[in-house]
Amino acid sequence: MNSYQKLNSLLKERKNYLCVGLDTDLNKIPAYFPKKIESILEFNKLIINATKDTAIGYKINFAFYEEYGAKGYDIIEQTLDYIPDELFTIADAKRGDIGNTSHSYAKSVFEKMNFDSITVSPYMGKDSIQPFLEFKDKLVFILCLTSNPGSKDFQTLIADGKPIYKHVLNNSLTWGNTENIGFVVGATNPEQLKEIRDIAKENVLLIPGIGAQGGSASEVIKANQNGPAIINSSRSIIYASDEDKFNRDASDKAEQLAVNLYYDY
Amino acid sequence: MNSYQKLNSLLKERKNYLCVGLDTDLNKIPAYFPKKIESILEFNKLIINATKDTAIGYKINFAFYEEYGAKGYDIIEQTLDYIPDELFTIADAKRGDIGNTSHSYAKSVFEKMNFDSITVSPYMGKDSIQPFLEFKDKLVFILCLTSNPGSKDFQTLIADGKPIYKHVLNNSLTWGNTENIGFVVGATNPEQLKEIRDIAKENVLLIPGIGAQGGSASEVIKANQNGPAIINSSRSIIYASDEDKFNRDASDKAEQLAVNLYYDY
Repeated sequence: MNSYQKLNSLLKERKNYLCVGLDTDLNKIPAYFPKKIESILEFNKLIINATKDTAIGYKINFAFYEEYGAKGYDIIEQTLDYIPDELFTIADAKRGDIGNTSHSYAKSVFEKMNFDSITVSPYMGKDSIQPFLEFKDKLVFILCLTSNPGSKDFQTLIADGKPIYKHVLNNSLTWGNTENIGFVVGATNPEQLKEIRDIAKENVLLIPGIGAQGGSASEVIKANQNGPAIINSSRSIIYASDEDKFNRDASDKAEQLAVNLYYDY
Repeated sequence: MNSYQKLNSLLKERKNYLCVGLDTDLNKIPAYFPKKIESILEFNKLIINATKDTAIGYKINFAFYEEYGAKGYDIIEQTLDYIPDELFTIADAKRGDIGNTSHSYAKSVFEKMNFDSITVSPYMGKDSIQPFLEFKDKLVFILCLTSNPGSKDFQTLIADGKPIYKHVLNNSLTWGNTENIGFVVGATNPEQLKEIRDIAKENVLLIPGIGAQGGSASEVIKANQNGPAIINSSRSIIYASDEDKFNRDASDKAEQLAVNLYYDY
């Protein structure tokens, strides 16, 4: 079973799109955790326990771990090991480099670690993404239209009558197949999300930006038109409260969000 | 002394632009090294010893180390520690994410480690790069026109009468100042390099692609017009030979390249 099939099974089984983003920050986790890097792993484990029966998977943003160098990488690997095998995992690393170099990045997340998918940046073009696609069973999410204010700096410039993010979409659809190419599309742009879904009907969309970043669950669900997708929420779940029962609160918040992020197949 | 000033002093002192890229690959280093990750550090130390009196600095491409997870990060940190303090260092990581996330990447390379500079990808726009610029003494190299074939996929699309890479150039010049914003421009595009230099007269250009990728030293030197720059060569130096005297050969190769990459101020 490849990553695409794994995701589709999870969607059918759990009937929601919710992914929990483990953007764990030592300065934001409840005060009773000692201020040391090992607390990040402990926190992650409690969040995973609290949400693993609801969510379809977990997204680990590498930045929050690389901040601690080698020890941070250890925590990524240990967190990944702790996530139940049947759930979907995303290495949110936004990598991309010339061919021989991207090959090493791909080996890092798909061989050394065993993530189901990765996020990559399209600026350097086809040969910077091809090495990730050589791992045939994995899913590669290409940044298309992101959720942040800076998405309007270059992604929406118009060339040959269409925005750059649509060039990325149309061009990169030819680099792989439906099952190994996906796209990152911010929840803050539901109208464009619908247009992207109309073009990439069966590709998986990774949709961040629900919650703290302001995206609306109901608009996203409507725009996505029951296509295969992963809708990520990080801060609104993992920092649902800073009380000792933060994990109970995270569990409640995940359940609420899952209801709103229903998959109706 | 900030990174910009450090680089300019080195250029005046050493009178060449040569940076050595430590893209160290266990499968390419001489056969007498045992096939274990510690060999990468040993190889790097020998290459640094062989080239430190010639080159102005070292570029460490993170991909080749991340391939080994946490241990690879240790090797990055130990290699960085081994580089003489007076030489310039580049974290070639091509990072970029939404604001709070990029802040963690910036802390990783500038606080946890103490690199003089980093490479970042512009696709996500201003707020993805701003957190790196908050480290006022450091240099941030924004991907502009890269050296690989895929640079023609999106970077050269024309919007409002000019290519995307010029939008990146013009727009990002307003995000910081001459001393903290630099650009990555491939040696394989000397004509465009000249145009970029004409716009960013005093910014540092990081120019990869000499040697194995096919860029010509003399064309690059001419196009750069004596501006502040770093011209990187990786494979042609570190893999100058696979004999036991590979470090002597790397030293000779670096000296030859340095003569061709002269800084004439």
